[in-house]
Amino acid sequence: MADTSAKRLLDSDKTGEPAPDVKRGKTDNENGREDGNESVQENVLSGFKTSSVLSDSAREKNIFIHGKVADQDAVVILEKTPIREDSLAELFSGSTLKLEMKNDIYSTYRLQAPPHLNEIKTTVVCPATEKHIKKYQRKESFLVEETEEDYKNITLPHIVKQSFSVQWVYNILEKKAEAERIVYEDPDPDVGFVLLPDFKWDQKQVDDLYLIAIAHQRDIKSLRDLTSEHVPLLQNIFQKGKEAILQRYNLPASKLRVYLHYQPSYYHLHVHFTKLGYDAPGCGVERAHLIADVIQNLQSNPQYYKTRTLYFPLRADDGLLSKFKEAGRL
Amino acid sequence: MADTSAKRLLDSDKTGEPAPDVKRGKTDNENGREDGNESVQENVLSGFKTSSVLSDSAREKNIFIHGKVADQDAVVILEKTPIREDSLAELFSGSTLKLEMKNDIYSTYRLQAPPHLNEIKTTVVCPATEKHIKKYQRKESFLVEETEEDYKNITLPHIVKQSFSVQWVYNILEKKAEAERIVYEDPDPDVGFVLLPDFKWDQKQVDDLYLIAIAHQRDIKSLRDLTSEHVPLLQNIFQKGKEAILQRYNLPASKLRVYLHYQPSYYHLHVHFTKLGYDAPGCGVERAHLIADVIQNLQSNPQYYKTRTLYFPLRADDGLLSKFKEAGRL
Repeated sequence: MADTSAKRLLDSDKTGEPAPDVKRGKTDNENGREDGNESVQENVLSGFKTSSVLSDSAREKNIFIHGKVADQDAVVILEKTPIREDSLAELFSGSTLKLEMKNDIYSTYRLQAPPHLNEIKTTVVCPATEKHIKKYQRKESFLVEETEEDYKNITLPHIVKQSFSVQWVYNILEKKAEAERIVYEDPDPDVGFVLLPDFKWDQKQVDDLYLIAIAHQRDIKSLRDLTSEHVPLLQNIFQKGKEAILQRYNLPASKLRVYLHYQPSYYHLHVHFTKLGYDAPGCGVERAHLIADVIQNLQSNPQYYKTRTLYFPLRADDGLLSKFKEAGRL
Repeated sequence: MADTSAKRLLDSDKTGEPAPDVKRGKTDNENGREDGNESVQENVLSGFKTSSVLSDSAREKNIFIHGKVADQDAVVILEKTPIREDSLAELFSGSTLKLEMKNDIYSTYRLQAPPHLNEIKTTVVCPATEKHIKKYQRKESFLVEETEEDYKNITLPHIVKQSFSVQWVYNILEKKAEAERIVYEDPDPDVGFVLLPDFKWDQKQVDDLYLIAIAHQRDIKSLRDLTSEHVPLLQNIFQKGKEAILQRYNLPASKLRVYLHYQPSYYHLHVHFTKLGYDAPGCGVERAHLIADVIQNLQSNPQYYKTRTLYFPLRADDGLLSKFKEAGRL
């Protein structure tokens, strides 16, 4: 989900050359006021010409812009700053309020604050290369509706043709790689699995706990292949995965969100364990399926996932999206 | 997902008494500029005394504050607004930049913008009861498993006993409040509904589009009450809601995530329409149910939601969680 997070993108972009000559503006004083001592620059952005918005987030209040600064390509990132408790008194007394709506005890306003209490963090990458620009670009997603027939005629042939390599998964299952990262293993060939931390999790705190259970069975590509015969496998992963997480991280089942992705990132059955309350990327209803729901659905209808119309987002650059478009299904 | 999000907390608080006397400020003009015609209020917050910060989010740039407005308890919610593409030129030319750091091709600044280009959305709940204050307080969540029997023995009695007021919903359906916010209405008493922007959405950009469809039928508390007889109602909301959004906001169905919450914030049937790719609070798999899935499930099993075990998160201070604990179900 949060592919466009300012922080993640910013983080992942530090590909510039080393900087032997680091200069630094004078640090602002505590309350962010102008006091005449600060490094007020000539406004390098006053002549900035926007070429395009690469991405933005209404939730995080940021925007990534490609444009030109004095004939050089640049990426400018704006992000509003968090609201600080120590500025509230001044904010309330020094601002202008405009009423928008009143209903019962609820009213909403637009508040116009003194600029020094409401700054925007601004990052400039200049000169920016083609690589920077592509990196900051949002890949839009589209919701696709996949019927049973669509799966057979469009999705399955695409998966087979691409023959995405899952050699790295087999390396894990065979202990040829990442063996020391394994948190728990049930070696049973039918219902067994390997549980290990997802790469996204730094394992420094449980607040953003993220583990993956990878089935030993190699013939299940995704949710679409599941039938009632796989219920014991799913139940085993669910039950033993929860127990292993309680034991290792002291996190009870009531704090876990356990789910499968459809479409998955790779076509070998795996299950996601993330902490409830952590906005894990990909935990949205449009892509995630709670394992508890999957088990119930298969118990009451063995062919549930073979026959059901499924919905999922595909990014604009996903080859599968082109296939759906070619088939007139979008 | 984001338990501390301004948005969900705001959503989940609609428990106020009826409002016979609904006043309303003049709607702001399109580009958010001052033009002398707007309803500039006396600053009701200039004398606001903060008692405590109930919660805040550095990621979403919001803060929930408990305090006093003229001796009355109030909750004030501040949230910075998304950065709008159409204001960028004026933002760059009209702002002051302060250099913070320069390293190689990367530099960061603090940008001080003209106040009308950098507003803070402000919501006031006044007078606020102890219940409001508790509700806005940051709280941990727990995943609850609710069987058919749990619903009958624990959840339903709790809902009935609490008799949460939905008078504000009836005000909307009867045009006693928010009538000018209505985007679309189908007045049919059986399958009709009112579509209007959610409070969380400032309607300035479609990136975080969030609308709510409220059914005219008054006897459906939640997902649990739905049977196959409600399929025409759900299909009508889904279809006409998508059409209205395409017409008004030029956003096609492939960019929409349409879902119900279980548990809902209020027990009158309503459907959420949010933009795909916008991490809307409450769109996580643990609380959201795609309307397309709900329709399919009811079509193949009329009693699906009456009989199924459902999973949902409850906050630590939710009375329903205590009931599940007392019953030994957590």
